Amino acid sequence: MLQSQRPRRIVIVGGVAAGASAAARARRLSEHAEIVLIERGPDISFANCGMPYHIGEKIEHRERLLVVRPQLLRERFRIDVRTSHEVTALNPRSKQLRVTDLQRGEEYTLDYDQLLLTPGAAPFVPNIPGVDLPHVETLRNLGDMDRIKARVDRGLSRALIIGAGFIGLELVENLVHRGVSTTLIERGSQIMPPMDAEMTAPLLEVLETHGVDVRLGTEAVRFEPCENGVRAVLSSGAELEVGLVVLGTGVRPENALAAQAGLELGPRGGIKVDRQMRTSVPDIFAAGDVVETYEAITETPIQVPLAGPANRQGRIAADAMFEREASFRGSQCTAILGLFDRVAAMTGFSEKDARRRGLRVGTAVVHPAHHASYYPGAKPMTLKLVYDAESGRVLGAAGVGSEGVDKRIDVLAVAVQAQFTVFQLEELELCYAPQFGSAKDPVNMLGFVAAGQMRGDHPQISAAEVASRVESGECLLVDVRTPHEFAAGSIESAINIPLDELRERLGELPRDRRLVAFCKVGQRGYIATRILLQHGFNAVNLSGGYTSWSLHTATQPLSVS
Amino acid sequence: MLQSQRPRRIVIVGGVAAGASAAARARRLSEHAEIVLIERGPDISFANCGMPYHIGEKIEHRERLLVVRPQLLRERFRIDVRTSHEVTALNPRSKQLRVTDLQRGEEYTLDYDQLLLTPGAAPFVPNIPGVDLPHVETLRNLGDMDRIKARVDRGLSRALIIGAGFIGLELVENLVHRGVSTTLIERGSQIMPPMDAEMTAPLLEVLETHGVDVRLGTEAVRFEPCENGVRAVLSSGAELEVGLVVLGTGVRPENALAAQAGLELGPRGGIKVDRQMRTSVPDIFAAGDVVETYEAITETPIQVPLAGPANRQGRIAADAMFEREASFRGSQCTAILGLFDRVAAMTGFSEKDARRRGLRVGTAVVHPAHHASYYPGAKPMTLKLVYDAESGRVLGAAGVGSEGVDKRIDVLAVAVQAQFTVFQLEELELCYAPQFGSAKDPVNMLGFVAAGQMRGDHPQISAAEVASRVESGECLLVDVRTPHEFAAGSIESAINIPLDELRERLGELPRDRRLVAFCKVGQRGYIATRILLQHGFNAVNLSGGYTSWSLHTATQPLSVS
Repeated sequence: MLQSQRPRRIVIVGGVAAGASAAARARRLSEHAEIVLIERGPDISFANCGMPYHIGEKIEHRERLLVVRPQLLRERFRIDVRTSHEVTALNPRSKQLRVTDLQRGEEYTLDYDQLLLTPGAAPFVPNIPGVDLPHVETLRNLGDMDRIKARVDRGLSRALIIGAGFIGLELVENLVHRGVSTTLIERGSQIMPPMDAEMTAPLLEVLETHGVDVRLGTEAVRFEPCENGVRAVLSSGAELEVGLVVLGTGVRPENALAAQAGLELGPRGGIKVDRQMRTSVPDIFAAGDVVETYEAITETPIQVPLAGPANRQGRIAADAMFEREASFRGSQCTAILGLFDRVAAMTGFSEKDARRRGLRVGTAVVHPAHHASYYPGAKPMTLKLVYDAESGRVLGAAGVGSEGVDKRIDVLAVAVQAQFTVFQLEELELCYAPQFGSAKDPVNMLGFVAAGQMRGDHPQISAAEVASRVESGECLLVDVRTPHEFAAGSIESAINIPLDELRERLGELPRDRRLVAFCKVGQRGYIATRILLQHGFNAVNLSGGYTSWSLHTATQPLSVS
Repeated sequence: MLQSQRPRRIVIVGGVAAGASAAARARRLSEHAEIVLIERGPDISFANCGMPYHIGEKIEHRERLLVVRPQLLRERFRIDVRTSHEVTALNPRSKQLRVTDLQRGEEYTLDYDQLLLTPGAAPFVPNIPGVDLPHVETLRNLGDMDRIKARVDRGLSRALIIGAGFIGLELVENLVHRGVSTTLIERGSQIMPPMDAEMTAPLLEVLETHGVDVRLGTEAVRFEPCENGVRAVLSSGAELEVGLVVLGTGVRPENALAAQAGLELGPRGGIKVDRQMRTSVPDIFAAGDVVETYEAITETPIQVPLAGPANRQGRIAADAMFEREASFRGSQCTAILGLFDRVAAMTGFSEKDARRRGLRVGTAVVHPAHHASYYPGAKPMTLKLVYDAESGRVLGAAGVGSEGVDKRIDVLAVAVQAQFTVFQLEELELCYAPQFGSAKDPVNMLGFVAAGQMRGDHPQISAAEVASRVESGECLLVDVRTPHEFAAGSIESAINIPLDELRERLGELPRDRRLVAFCKVGQRGYIATRILLQHGFNAVNLSGGYTSWSLHTATQPLSVS
């Protein structure tokens, strides 16, 4: 047969993370296949996560972002790279694509044996008046980056960023570094929507420290041209004249081709694929930000644009084309944000996400130093663990602080993948020398706190719950810190009995009310709770202590909007 | 009965890591028990891992090392702390201890209901002439530290450190910081004996950079008094006059009391305990550096002095005293060393250790940057994975570099605990933003390299094996780097065919010899190997490339001694 005489032709549509990974993997698996990589834009495999940092001039040279150039894929991998070519139609029955060479303006038909769709996701552009004005940008590719950077280079004085997610916050940091006076608006009641609200308090704080004008619960309602740029009219009624607006309001899968060809799509528009990245149509695969993928813990469909999973999916799609065993285990949504000197990271479910899914949620919070506190330079952090309150299985974790946050979340990401329980976190054996960690690492501490709760030794109550109950008089708050700490600020209505006096002063405490012990971070409150319980009191520890209380109150909608 | 009318008395002998942990845990479990903590020295629960850094004045204030003071244990935990008391005899039948109050010189008898032995391990002092001279020290407690620091403060000019393990190397760094000219001798053929030799090359290099006189394969044979201190006569015949000698030649369990009382000991002198830290005698428990414990992977007995496991064992012993479920899962020997700007860390088995145990060992080596190389400040590191060549199970890992090494070894420590295979390392989903990592994290890369070997896609050969075979002419070495890189230095006898020309120049290669492809770190060598294999050649990739070759040759006994 003619078909078996010519090499198989693999066509990949989209040349950034998943596409480039798949192309290189396919070539390593076969020297004989014909591999065509089609990319609408001028660049392939560029470092899109680096774009904000080139605008901020932390990454000085633009060419550093060009991780793999077309020439390398051509010479080293013998891949037929066609940049500035756009696929305009897909016919799965005839296994043909219509392609336009954008530079020459020529159209042609391309046959494929196997097709991989990796077109990515496009920034979501809300349908509001004036959104197409020239000073209103999104940041998806190097051309977008170049235009934004050019405005900054020309002396941009004011900018408006819409959306306080990863891209929005990274842009804010880099614009501030360049001396641009920046306003950040966010429709929701908190920044960093994937995180639990209280974890964002240190991020809000650092934005304020750097003079960023943050407005929560706020949307743009229209844009109008003005003398030096654009006038943004906000839902609050305020008007801002700025030289640049960047929309960081999420992305949508680039599914036009897939939809036109009749591929099955998920409810949010992602191409449906199986664990081998096969779409609903034979010989068509899809990978990266365009697909609806699996959430790794509950194995339910999700859509999440992340570089790591995209690369992995591209590799798996190539394996599947060559009938190799490989399977995408799902994404656990591990992600990290640097914001000035702060770091926020997460893996698996947040508390609110787990609750939204109807899981029975337990949480543990610690506020440790990133290494032994007796060694100079220890930085504070907050870690929050989310676990299944029945089985103790680790469902997710988040951290905020500076140094060492990435390490703890990576450790917890492995624990999520391993389906560890909180009891196994107690047993982690991690690196310890005083400049790197603690003999009881912060992640062990999370395990101790969660396991104590599971075993009933260490009943806890969250700051949010305390806040909702303290009004009713149902609980008596007992601050077990020193009088000095108490005087510097405590929870309203709390009484002060220092831990080391507690055993002598038990007579001062009522036996008919629930006692909520608390200290600075939860450690002394835990000991107090143990003492009280053993003396027959109804006692719980305020999880994370006064520090958690402060994070909670700092991120209540009323206090920040 | 009388026994039930008085509270149970728990006596803990030894008040540093395991002892203090156990005491606090026991009190949290029971407000009613009587808890006596006996410590021979003047201090409890001090930060012994910080001592070298106080000598080096990185930790400026001595009191920072006093993590938990006796007063706190007394007031907060109602523990009867008896420092400067020594237990001189143990009678398990009568459940009595003989105790000497060292300050008053008084002896008394103490009954116990449950006894925990946590005396730790003492520095090993070799039996050589002059080892008891006043300028010859060990570093176990704060008194030792004070004496050593006092010598440095008085202007010590030359020091000799014996033993190139953790304590020895940490002391070297800190003495150099204080301006002391330092010689380091080590009996073995490499520094950092727990690591595979080639991994120590960057550590040797940094010692040389800082002017440390390192002498491998060298022992001290005797010490003699001399005008300004001590004259050390070495096995090489050399003599050194120094103001301070510190022995860092390992530790031995402090088992005298246990031996006297007839407790079962392991072959290396550690007290034998079960998973609940029970010794062979009823109501006597032991924990910390004094016990023989379990190695977590093969579950065979080992003896290893580490702070993390000691703390955990103390906690478990307290749990066991109160009949709580808790079990020591064993130690995987996770450890880390800071040495000037370098970091070395390890978990589980080294290659040599795994081979010594008769396991079928596979290894993978990568030399990645600690975060995306397009973001400024990326630092190089070397990671080595040791896995079971049949099952792919991760047996251990080591890393050497600077930033980010601790994180990768912690991630791999969890993988060891989870009994992950190399295939699961491919699937780790870790934090990625360019300032923190890479979309394909170094640990994923280890997984790819090892899995490629397991699947037969990516056959590899180690630098050590190449070195032993290259002489015989059995292999032809093919350097696939650029002519420029080749000219700057390659392996003797290698030919140069740049990767991007390889497909055109296949005719230059013999089909009857094994081809060893190599590049700088292994990446291009892998692609070359794939090309060669698919064209019918017998090809393997030099694992870790020329970088691994250089690490190997830099740590061959001949080249360093």
